[in-house]
Amino acid sequence: MKITPYEVEGKVDYEKLVREFGVSKLTLSLIRKVKKPPLLMRRGFFYAHRDFDKILGEKEFAIVSGRGPSGPLTLGHLAVFKAVKEFQDAYGCRVFIPLSDDEKFLYREIKFEDAQKFAKENLLDLIALGFNLKKTEFMIDTINLRQEVYNLAVKCAKRMTLSTVKDSLGFKDSQNIGSVFYPAMQAAHILYPTARYGLPVLVVIAIDQDVLIRLARDVAPKIGLRKPADLLSKFLPSLGPEDKMSASQPDLAIYVSDPPEEVRRKIRKAYTGGRDTPEQQARLGGKPEVCKIFDLYRFGLIEDDRELENTRQKCKQGKLLCKDCKAFAVEKVLKFLKEHQKKREKAKKVAERILNKELFGT
Amino acid sequence: MKITPYEVEGKVDYEKLVREFGVSKLTLSLIRKVKKPPLLMRRGFFYAHRDFDKILGEKEFAIVSGRGPSGPLTLGHLAVFKAVKEFQDAYGCRVFIPLSDDEKFLYREIKFEDAQKFAKENLLDLIALGFNLKKTEFMIDTINLRQEVYNLAVKCAKRMTLSTVKDSLGFKDSQNIGSVFYPAMQAAHILYPTARYGLPVLVVIAIDQDVLIRLARDVAPKIGLRKPADLLSKFLPSLGPEDKMSASQPDLAIYVSDPPEEVRRKIRKAYTGGRDTPEQQARLGGKPEVCKIFDLYRFGLIEDDRELENTRQKCKQGKLLCKDCKAFAVEKVLKFLKEHQKKREKAKKVAERILNKELFGT
Repeated sequence: MKITPYEVEGKVDYEKLVREFGVSKLTLSLIRKVKKPPLLMRRGFFYAHRDFDKILGEKEFAIVSGRGPSGPLTLGHLAVFKAVKEFQDAYGCRVFIPLSDDEKFLYREIKFEDAQKFAKENLLDLIALGFNLKKTEFMIDTINLRQEVYNLAVKCAKRMTLSTVKDSLGFKDSQNIGSVFYPAMQAAHILYPTARYGLPVLVVIAIDQDVLIRLARDVAPKIGLRKPADLLSKFLPSLGPEDKMSASQPDLAIYVSDPPEEVRRKIRKAYTGGRDTPEQQARLGGKPEVCKIFDLYRFGLIEDDRELENTRQKCKQGKLLCKDCKAFAVEKVLKFLKEHQKKREKAKKVAERILNKELFGT
Repeated sequence: MKITPYEVEGKVDYEKLVREFGVSKLTLSLIRKVKKPPLLMRRGFFYAHRDFDKILGEKEFAIVSGRGPSGPLTLGHLAVFKAVKEFQDAYGCRVFIPLSDDEKFLYREIKFEDAQKFAKENLLDLIALGFNLKKTEFMIDTINLRQEVYNLAVKCAKRMTLSTVKDSLGFKDSQNIGSVFYPAMQAAHILYPTARYGLPVLVVIAIDQDVLIRLARDVAPKIGLRKPADLLSKFLPSLGPEDKMSASQPDLAIYVSDPPEEVRRKIRKAYTGGRDTPEQQARLGGKPEVCKIFDLYRFGLIEDDRELENTRQKCKQGKLLCKDCKAFAVEKVLKFLKEHQKKREKAKKVAERILNKELFGT
C-alpha cells in the first residue's frame, strides 16, 4: 500500500492509515454528538478525524472542502459535498469551496484551459446541490482568486521551508516550482475562514490528503491562526472490483454529465459479486458488502436508512437478482441526474455572478 | 565582487558583469537610435542590455519596471522611473509597474503589513511622476493582484524546475517555498504586457536582477511568448564613498519623505572628494567623478546637459567650493521635493481608484 496525495497504490488498509497518519478514529460516541449526522457519516464513509471533537464543542465553525477539477464530478463527489451541505443545514456553518484548477494544472498533464473549464463545470454541479449562498463561497483559483487567499498563501509560504515540503510530500528537485509552492496555497484555502471570519475550520477531505492538512496545521499557529480540524473519508468506491477509482478509469464511475445510455452501460457492467445463476443467487444470497450497486445505494441513492437495511437483507437472503437490482439502480440514477441537471441549469446565473465577483456569498 | 539579486558585495566591476552575464554593452551608436534618449541614458547610467536593439526596431513595445517596496523611495529610484516615463513620452508605450511587496516580505525580515504600507507610499510617488494613466498600470501584489498575472505565474511555474531556480539563484532547501516560487511571479510581471496585449516587453532594471530576467527569458518561449528584452542600469549611487547604497544605510540616500532638516544634514555629510581647504580646492580642483553631490546633479537635479557639463568644468577647475555646491544642491533638492509632495498629494485619489480596481489604466 502506498498512499500520497498524488498516488494511491495497492489494497488500502484504512485501519493502518489511521495509525500511520496518527489521526483518531471517528467513534460511534462521537457521531452521536453530531446534530443530524450526514448520511455518509451514518454509513461509515467518514471514519477518522483530527480535532473533530473540539469543533463540535464550538458555538460556530466553518467547513472547507475543495475540489481539484480534473474532470466532471461523479455521483460520489456529489455525495461528499452533499454531506457538507447537511452539516451546513444542521449547524448553519459557513462553507468555503475552493476549486483548485491551478493545482491540477501544476501536478498533472492537463492543459490550463481544460482544468479551468472543468472547474467551471464542477461549480455548476456544486451550486446545484443547494448550499445556502449567503453562507457559501466558491472560488476558482484561476478565475476569482481572492486577494486575501493569495496573501494568506504568501504568509504561509514564508513559514514553510522547502525541506519540510520536500520531506512531507516526497518532492524532488525536478519538480516544478509551482507544485512546490502549492501546499501554501492549499493551506491558505484551509485557513481562509479563520483568517477572515475568525472561525475554527473543519476540513472535509479524503484520507490521502491528510499530509496537506498536517502542513496547514503546522503553519497555522506560526501565522497566529488556530489549527484546522479535519474529518477524513475513505476513498470513493468505483464500479469495478477495485477499491479506489482513478481518473484513468472513466468507465468505473458515473459522471453527472453521463447521458442515460452511458449510465445504463456502466451500471450493467458494474461489479456486484453476484452469483453465476439466478438459482445460486436465490440459494446463496448476494454480497452487498462488495457490491458496487449497493455502494451507490449507500452513497445516497437510497436515502432512508431502513430501506437501505431492508435492501441489504433482501440481497443477502437471495431475494434480489442483480439484474433487477441494476434496473432499479438505473432508474434511480437517471431520475437523480434528471433533477440534478435541472438544478444545474438554474445554477448558471449564480455561477456567472460568482465568477464575475458580483456575488461573494458573504 | 559578489552580485546576486539579493546581495551586492565588494567593489563593483561593471565591465566584468557585462562579460559574466553575457549581456551587450549599450553602445553610443545604439543610443543614437533612441528617440529622445532619457536623461539617465544620456548620462551613462543605463549601460547594458539584452535585445534592446530589437525592441527599437518594433512599431510598439511595452515597458515593465517594478519596485520591491522595502522602504520609501529615494531620489535615485524616482530618477529611474522618470527615465521610464521619458520612454513613454517619446514612444507612447504602455508601462506596467508591479510593486512586489510579497517579494520583499518573502525575502527579507520585514512584516507583511509594513511591506504593503511601503508599496502604497511608493505608489503615490510613482503616480506623482506623471505617467500617462491611460497607458500605465500599477499593481501592488497584495492589494490589486491581477488574476491574469497570477495565472501567468502558474503557467511559468509549471515550466520552471526547482533545480533551475536553485542553481540560478543559489537557493538552499532551508529557503521558504514562497521565495522559491517568486521567480515565476516575477516572470509573470515581466511577461504580462506580452500575454495581455501581445506587445514585446522591455524591462528596465538594475544589472543585479539580470538573472531573474534570464529566467523569464528562458520560460517565455515555453509558454508561447516572446522573450523580453532588458535595459540594465548600474546601481544607484549613495551619498557615501561606497558604490552601492544598501537598505541598511538610510543616511546615505535622500528619501522623498525626508523633511528639509534631514535633507540638509544628509547633504552636509555627503562625500564629495573635496580638498581639505578652500585654497587647495582652488588650486587642485574638485573631483566630480567621485562626488556624490555631482551624482545628484547627474541623476537629474541638473536637467540641462550643458549646465551639467559647465558645473563639472567649474568644479574641476577649482571654481566651486563644496560648501557652496552643497548649499546649491540643498536648495535644488528642497525645491524638487516640495513640488513632488504637491503632486504626490494630488496622486492620492488616483491611487485609491487603482487599488479599488476602479482604474486599471487600460
